[in-house]
Amino acid sequence: MSADPDEAPSREDAWLDRVLGRLAAAHPDAVRLGPGHDAAAIDVEGGSVVVTTDVLIDGVHFRSDAMDPAAIARKALAVNLSDLAAAAAVPLGFVVGGVLPKPADPALFEAISIGFATAAEALRCPCLGGDTNVAEGPLVLAVTALGSPGPLGVLSRRGAAPGMHVSVTGPLGGSIHGRHLTFSPRVREAQVLARHGVPCAMMDISDGLALDLSRLCRASGVGVRLEAARIPIHPDVREDGAAALACALGDGEDFELLVAHAALDDATERSLRAEGVVLTRIGTFQAAAAGRVLVGAGGETPLQPTGFDHGG
Amino acid sequence: MSADPDEAPSREDAWLDRVLGRLAAAHPDAVRLGPGHDAAAIDVEGGSVVVTTDVLIDGVHFRSDAMDPAAIARKALAVNLSDLAAAAAVPLGFVVGGVLPKPADPALFEAISIGFATAAEALRCPCLGGDTNVAEGPLVLAVTALGSPGPLGVLSRRGAAPGMHVSVTGPLGGSIHGRHLTFSPRVREAQVLARHGVPCAMMDISDGLALDLSRLCRASGVGVRLEAARIPIHPDVREDGAAALACALGDGEDFELLVAHAALDDATERSLRAEGVVLTRIGTFQAAAAGRVLVGAGGETPLQPTGFDHGG
Repeated sequence: MSADPDEAPSREDAWLDRVLGRLAAAHPDAVRLGPGHDAAAIDVEGGSVVVTTDVLIDGVHFRSDAMDPAAIARKALAVNLSDLAAAAAVPLGFVVGGVLPKPADPALFEAISIGFATAAEALRCPCLGGDTNVAEGPLVLAVTALGSPGPLGVLSRRGAAPGMHVSVTGPLGGSIHGRHLTFSPRVREAQVLARHGVPCAMMDISDGLALDLSRLCRASGVGVRLEAARIPIHPDVREDGAAALACALGDGEDFELLVAHAALDDATERSLRAEGVVLTRIGTFQAAAAGRVLVGAGGETPLQPTGFDHGG
Repeated sequence: MSADPDEAPSREDAWLDRVLGRLAAAHPDAVRLGPGHDAAAIDVEGGSVVVTTDVLIDGVHFRSDAMDPAAIARKALAVNLSDLAAAAAVPLGFVVGGVLPKPADPALFEAISIGFATAAEALRCPCLGGDTNVAEGPLVLAVTALGSPGPLGVLSRRGAAPGMHVSVTGPLGGSIHGRHLTFSPRVREAQVLARHGVPCAMMDISDGLALDLSRLCRASGVGVRLEAARIPIHPDVREDGAAALACALGDGEDFELLVAHAALDDATERSLRAEGVVLTRIGTFQAAAAGRVLVGAGGETPLQPTGFDHGG
């Protein structure tokens, strides 16, 4: 579903706003970053911990009849690590809440378990525990991941300012052809960027560049001038021309990072490249009053926040 | 479902064992307490954080057609706080992963949001964020709660030894008549007990005294001699005699704490009472070889681990 973040925040955003609005926090000072971001952060003795949760559901985020259960488990972990990456946090561990369709299929159970164990090792994030249930309904995997803040603290969607660049860590679009299951969450890239002091605001692209960039603009209180010709289109995109651009803008599940940053000096850019991180600049933030626009061959048009709203 | 923890661990236990067994943890030293306990613990800079997750599903843990959505949300938070209490941890905050049945009902959505906000305030545990989705299937609420360890560190099901007492923090049985929605997680009681250095092992009674005590025995590698006449039966139990005892042993969702501890001296007992904590001793741990037995009017019988296994 599409939604205009100015006029009608998505259902998820509305829900979180509502919860947040009504919340008389018992320990409000300890909550460093609350609902409405990719990850939350809370102070603990001697530091803070970053937490994020993402629910994957059969028929919505994957198809258990067509996909390897181990790949589904990997995705359930990886999308959470992508949220930790957006906060520039280092993964500490994760828990899984699972609902298995009734009657329970031991083979499915086993395959998912192996998938989580394998993904935990590959993605370097240990499983801390879980809660498994059997019920009528689709397979549900609710993963919550914990992380520790990187050198810039906990990054969020707030912090973009007019004049800053907006960049992405990789090409976009066409993830539906398989990459949505196999992507690498940009945990390492986020750490490199944070170590070099680059990001002022960050998020991961899960619901599509146009929608997620609109959300980042809304959270930061800025507008943006997005340049169509600069948007890197992934080789997975099978369409051409305007249709290809639409895929890069709206397909979603790219899980690249969307980064707001000041202009990079040559030394920083070289250092980033030496560590394997390439930021592709796709536009410039501007004052909120100047709006969110897409600059294409035909001139400027309002940036339509196309993309997939899981809450809708 | 019933299960014999010695012969056939529950599906959940088996799943966790499997995940744990296959897990080559990326940061193994940081995982202080992993799968198989009510809560896990992981080291963070300057301390450690306790994490627990519990999934509640319509038709399994509640009935959305017969229960107030706000009460369901409260329960989803409270069961997690009960797990934190079992670890003697102080709640820091929680996240919610929700699946709403399709088509989404805005009134249900709103009521659940208000329920979480109200419960967060009442139970002094702020909402940190969430992820809401809409899908074909039952309402699912997956809550993950974070806590900080109490003065005894992170308590677990391990630590009971032969000769120790086994006690509960309150009467058992009959929660199905309403208390399963309105119970108070024993967070404060756990803190009082920990401050007085009482618990050596602890868990909360969610699946029934008999099953949960069997699990604690299994985790600690001990047996137990449970005295039927000592088990406090809740006034909510409508049955009499042997049937009432069966309710106390097997109903579950009591959310009282099951505590393994050395004999209390009078001063400690007085101090606990002064702080409103009454431990009712229900038996004594013994060597594993002596088994798990229930001592009733008719003599000793093997303790049947009756109770509700959500994983079965």
